Amino acid sequence: MTTDIRTQELKNPIDVAEYLFRRLHQVGVRSVHGVPGDYNLVALDYIPKTDLHWVGNVNELNAGYAADGYARVKGISAIVTTFGVGELSTVNAIAGAYSEYVPIVHIVGYPSTVAQKDGMLLHHTLGNGDFHVFSRIFRQISCATSLINDPHEAATLIDNAIRECWLQSRPVYISLPTDIVQKKIEGDRLNTPLDLSYPTNDPEKEDYVVDVVMKYLHAAKNPVILVDACAIRHRVLDEVHELVEKSGMPTFVAPMGKGAVNETLPNYGGVYAGSGSNAGVRERVESSDLILSIGAIKSDFNTAGFTYRISQLATIDFHSNYVRVRYSEYPGVRMLGVLRQICRRLQAASAPPLSILPGPQPTNAIPAAELADPAPTITQAWFWPRLGQWLRPADILITETGTANFGIWETRFPADVTAISQVLWGSIGYATAATQGAALAAREIGIQRTVLFTGDGSFQLTAQELSTMLRNGLTPVIFVICNGGYTIERYIHGWQERYNDVQEWRYGDLPRAFGAKEGEARVVRVETKTEVERLFSDEGFATQKCLRFVELVMRWDDAPVALKLTASAAAKRNAEA
Amino acid sequence: MTTDIRTQELKNPIDVAEYLFRRLHQVGVRSVHGVPGDYNLVALDYIPKTDLHWVGNVNELNAGYAADGYARVKGISAIVTTFGVGELSTVNAIAGAYSEYVPIVHIVGYPSTVAQKDGMLLHHTLGNGDFHVFSRIFRQISCATSLINDPHEAATLIDNAIRECWLQSRPVYISLPTDIVQKKIEGDRLNTPLDLSYPTNDPEKEDYVVDVVMKYLHAAKNPVILVDACAIRHRVLDEVHELVEKSGMPTFVAPMGKGAVNETLPNYGGVYAGSGSNAGVRERVESSDLILSIGAIKSDFNTAGFTYRISQLATIDFHSNYVRVRYSEYPGVRMLGVLRQICRRLQAASAPPLSILPGPQPTNAIPAAELADPAPTITQAWFWPRLGQWLRPADILITETGTANFGIWETRFPADVTAISQVLWGSIGYATAATQGAALAAREIGIQRTVLFTGDGSFQLTAQELSTMLRNGLTPVIFVICNGGYTIERYIHGWQERYNDVQEWRYGDLPRAFGAKEGEARVVRVETKTEVERLFSDEGFATQKCLRFVELVMRWDDAPVALKLTASAAAKRNAEA
Repeated sequence: MTTDIRTQELKNPIDVAEYLFRRLHQVGVRSVHGVPGDYNLVALDYIPKTDLHWVGNVNELNAGYAADGYARVKGISAIVTTFGVGELSTVNAIAGAYSEYVPIVHIVGYPSTVAQKDGMLLHHTLGNGDFHVFSRIFRQISCATSLINDPHEAATLIDNAIRECWLQSRPVYISLPTDIVQKKIEGDRLNTPLDLSYPTNDPEKEDYVVDVVMKYLHAAKNPVILVDACAIRHRVLDEVHELVEKSGMPTFVAPMGKGAVNETLPNYGGVYAGSGSNAGVRERVESSDLILSIGAIKSDFNTAGFTYRISQLATIDFHSNYVRVRYSEYPGVRMLGVLRQICRRLQAASAPPLSILPGPQPTNAIPAAELADPAPTITQAWFWPRLGQWLRPADILITETGTANFGIWETRFPADVTAISQVLWGSIGYATAATQGAALAAREIGIQRTVLFTGDGSFQLTAQELSTMLRNGLTPVIFVICNGGYTIERYIHGWQERYNDVQEWRYGDLPRAFGAKEGEARVVRVETKTEVERLFSDEGFATQKCLRFVELVMRWDDAPVALKLTASAAAKRNAEA
Repeated sequence: MTTDIRTQELKNPIDVAEYLFRRLHQVGVRSVHGVPGDYNLVALDYIPKTDLHWVGNVNELNAGYAADGYARVKGISAIVTTFGVGELSTVNAIAGAYSEYVPIVHIVGYPSTVAQKDGMLLHHTLGNGDFHVFSRIFRQISCATSLINDPHEAATLIDNAIRECWLQSRPVYISLPTDIVQKKIEGDRLNTPLDLSYPTNDPEKEDYVVDVVMKYLHAAKNPVILVDACAIRHRVLDEVHELVEKSGMPTFVAPMGKGAVNETLPNYGGVYAGSGSNAGVRERVESSDLILSIGAIKSDFNTAGFTYRISQLATIDFHSNYVRVRYSEYPGVRMLGVLRQICRRLQAASAPPLSILPGPQPTNAIPAAELADPAPTITQAWFWPRLGQWLRPADILITETGTANFGIWETRFPADVTAISQVLWGSIGYATAATQGAALAAREIGIQRTVLFTGDGSFQLTAQELSTMLRNGLTPVIFVICNGGYTIERYIHGWQERYNDVQEWRYGDLPRAFGAKEGEARVVRVETKTEVERLFSDEGFATQKCLRFVELVMRWDDAPVALKLTASAAAKRNAEA
């Protein structure tokens, strides 16, 4: 069905699969996640040939989550699945990446173009001869879909997909039929790297916007900066840091922006999330006369249930594709260029000083009430600031939806911490599998530690990803909060209903059951504050080169304050009619 | 946003969720699979109220597979998930049920109609205000989609969905927004049971078709019957058995039809799958001058790689929505009525006798070469007939895609065995989770044993469903074939490639790690034929009331002959261009 390109027409013939994987290598991918399946096997042979590492996940949903975790650390990732049965298990993971702007290149091994054209009744199909059902599903949750059916268009489709993935920072879908894998195309094209630069703003328009921003900035009496997720996902953190450091403005992060800003800076002020904010932050932010809001995603869980009380009249919003000053919108103006210019203007010799009032300075001090409590029980209020004292610069910290991703609001980070949390999409099970990808990415770039916090209910969904970590020699630190079920749901509805309980596992037995050999895993159980203290002061534990697995026992009915507020708002909204 | 029905207008007010679950109870559902999530919690409260059992699965993909297994035993099943993150994890399972005609009612807890109308930026959304993305995805793989947005239409939408689910024997999708759950509707409607009867054929048209069939049947010199999956899924097994027993025609099953026919009948002849058929079967079927083919799905894996050699001129095809005699098609004529009439006519005093030539009679005899082999190793060729000697009447037998679902072709069943195997969709991981649902359904209808055969590679995808079995007190017999990875894939491509290996687990440790208490699970490892013999002669093991978990060690490079043939055909087709 496909027409071959005559090899003598090619200066440097290369197989389609090799071209694809070399392109992925060029943009920074070093490991490929996924599960083998009969329609992708031949393509997998090209992975070692192109100096890539095959992860070999335990299932496809986990592979998708892991690819998401890898991309959040390395900037982009790739996953290979097989037609139908493989790809469809990733839908939740890919939708999450779409929702949260995570760039994943999803390559699906397809039946041959001949079988597709003939509508053959093959396994892994719906039995109706329609080979486009699954790509129609992924069109809903991908920013580009490249269906390769001919070697002539293969390179263009591959290049476009990878470029869109990077620039839009969202998943793309590439179909690779079995009979296309080894077709020859022009390899010289690889000598020209993909152009991954963002389009620049129209200079006149950008100048205009920057003038407006500077006017308000200089007029403000107590401006602040508020950084959120899209600042990370649309890659403006260097510009943000320059702005934060040069301006000296008090700087806050939304929960999804945790880790975007160096929290050891003197003007870092803590987490702003309306009524779920760190102590003193709400008052400071909401009394500011100008908020530079960078990359905001004002979702319910990111705002402690829509409890922001900031006026649009006091806000300038910076986004990947528009800027809004109070109610004036500037569509098509990307924040990247605008932020750069603002930094430049602030540095100019002629620039008048800004009016800066100091903000709160969060610490990892344990609240007095907790210190005074003689009970040995590990409480949420005690634990999260205590964790902040144990973390180290450059740690990667993954927190699962539930008590962990709300608890972490109370942890002030050392410098250069990367925080990963799926606050908007909020799929439980994500964090454990994402840890595999993040830990692998960390190893590739020389970061020492990847630390996971998940709940027992959430851990159960994707627990066997421990096996993939062991198989790949990864050494994350995993804390499973053993608190008898879905605590976040209890706070929404069904306080003691059976459906919010989970089966009681012997969690600590799992690393060995999943094949950990002598020395590959260390298992610890901590039930008291004293045991946590002992663990946190154990330098061996902190730096050991093996997978560390901690059962962290907490009460079933204990939760961070921010979670309680958010859950109660969600329950109210659910009942609203 | 929704308009309430005024309660005084209702004779017998009932909440929408209660109505829904009572309807499910009426059609035979007794247990509901799923995972709690904040948008479905209030609805879950109605499950115990309506005498249903909440399973509480470990994750949604497993829940979907389990619901599939339950439906194959009980005729229909239900699963509850939450918006976005929950439902999307089931896509693979629901697609499989769509592909293989398995009726599952999928209920998705939705955000309130108010939140949907306002396009709120809620967790579990794509962040774009579009609340219809996920239902668009499920439209591709559901035979009906009922989006409930108003109590006035709730009962009609629920009834239609359940009815379509039953009649089309495919999944349906029902959205249940949080603010609709407790809205009052008319409960008296429940006094009229749903009409689940199939539409009858036009009598004149049916008579005409039956005349034609009888003409060919009486003219045939050596007619045979071939039964396949759709005979099971479209519920004509009673009619098939009547035909098989009354006519005495040699009767064969396709692999997907395994279990459809009582294999202890004297005229049961074995599995027909082209070149993968049981000994003597291919010759007998392909030399027949008339094949009554009932409910065929001629997919690659069901025909050992499209190796049927039967002529359409010698075939009458019976389907749920048409009959085809040689090349004459009769659309809209359902097989149910036609088969009933054929039975009636064969019984008539005036009916001339059919010309019947006997067929082969399969046994569970071990092949001579295997008996002669002194090596202790458990081979595939030895094992599957040996298994047939151990099985008992009414067993439910689940075989995973891989060596197990091809091996089972060589097992002759006792009477009333239900065989479950996802031959067309072929998603690995399915069988383990489906076993949970099947074992639960079995318990509800008083069947003693549910037996699973899966491979180690496949088991790893959904292993934690063991936990759900334990939590629900289920006692299946689970055989994990420990053969070091994806053997079926090795036979397609990548014989010794690393991507076809899996991490070596300590499988036997898992029941305890997943919380099995003393006496709840028994773990056995068998590495030799002698050990299998000992296990199979242990009456305690055969009937024990606990979960039995067997590590069944086989060689990594051993596979049933039918698998080798099918895999080699698949490899060839993949390369075809």
